[in-house]
Amino acid sequence: MYHNNINNVKKEKVEMEGAVGAWIQWLITKERGAANYAMRLFTIEPDGKIPRHQHPWEHEIFVLEGTGIIGCCEEEKEVKEGDFLYIEPDVPHWYRNNGDKPWKFLCIIPYKD
Amino acid sequence: MYHNNINNVKKEKVEMEGAVGAWIQWLITKERGAANYAMRLFTIEPDGKIPRHQHPWEHEIFVLEGTGIIGCCEEEKEVKEGDFLYIEPDVPHWYRNNGDKPWKFLCIIPYKD
Repeated sequence: MYHNNINNVKKEKVEMEGAVGAWIQWLITKERGAANYAMRLFTIEPDGKIPRHQHPWEHEIFVLEGTGIIGCCEEEKEVKEGDFLYIEPDVPHWYRNNGDKPWKFLCIIPYKD
Repeated sequence: MYHNNINNVKKEKVEMEGAVGAWIQWLITKERGAANYAMRLFTIEPDGKIPRHQHPWEHEIFVLEGTGIIGCCEEEKEVKEGDFLYIEPDVPHWYRNNGDKPWKFLCIIPYKD
């Protein structure tokens, strides 16, 4: 069993072009033995964003605090604490903090061979 | 994109023999298109528990609120909000609320063929 707390995990800047005020913490990874999927925590500052992008893997998202906009394909959803989302592989999606405090959400992705 | 909130998802009693005051909500499942892993939310009431058991799939756990004990193999950990855990496949593990309010945690499991 591996056990830790988010306060002990380094925040890394999201380096995608166009990303602003966006941070990622890798919580559970293959380095801890997790062979099938990784758990990450994102923090998006007020006015922060991750621009439209797409990739061949899905997302399972759970919103911990704050509010934001998640866009996917041609729609946008406002999300809040306790919301959860599934974003299919290979669809364009984006994130934007529309509130006045940090927006935090978990995002789980698969490990693909 | 599939979007919902935990308040809209039915709470089902955990039916395992010896489980007391334990509830599960299936948030993201293959019925929503999630082919690789499922996201569930557990609520364990004060004095509630899920007894020692094991199975061939791993857990990735994130604690949302409350406090509890997670046991695995020969050790027990007290966990709180913001804690996360990886429990390997095929190891005995158990859960017990040791606080005075509901203990809530996410638990992600793989879909195996």
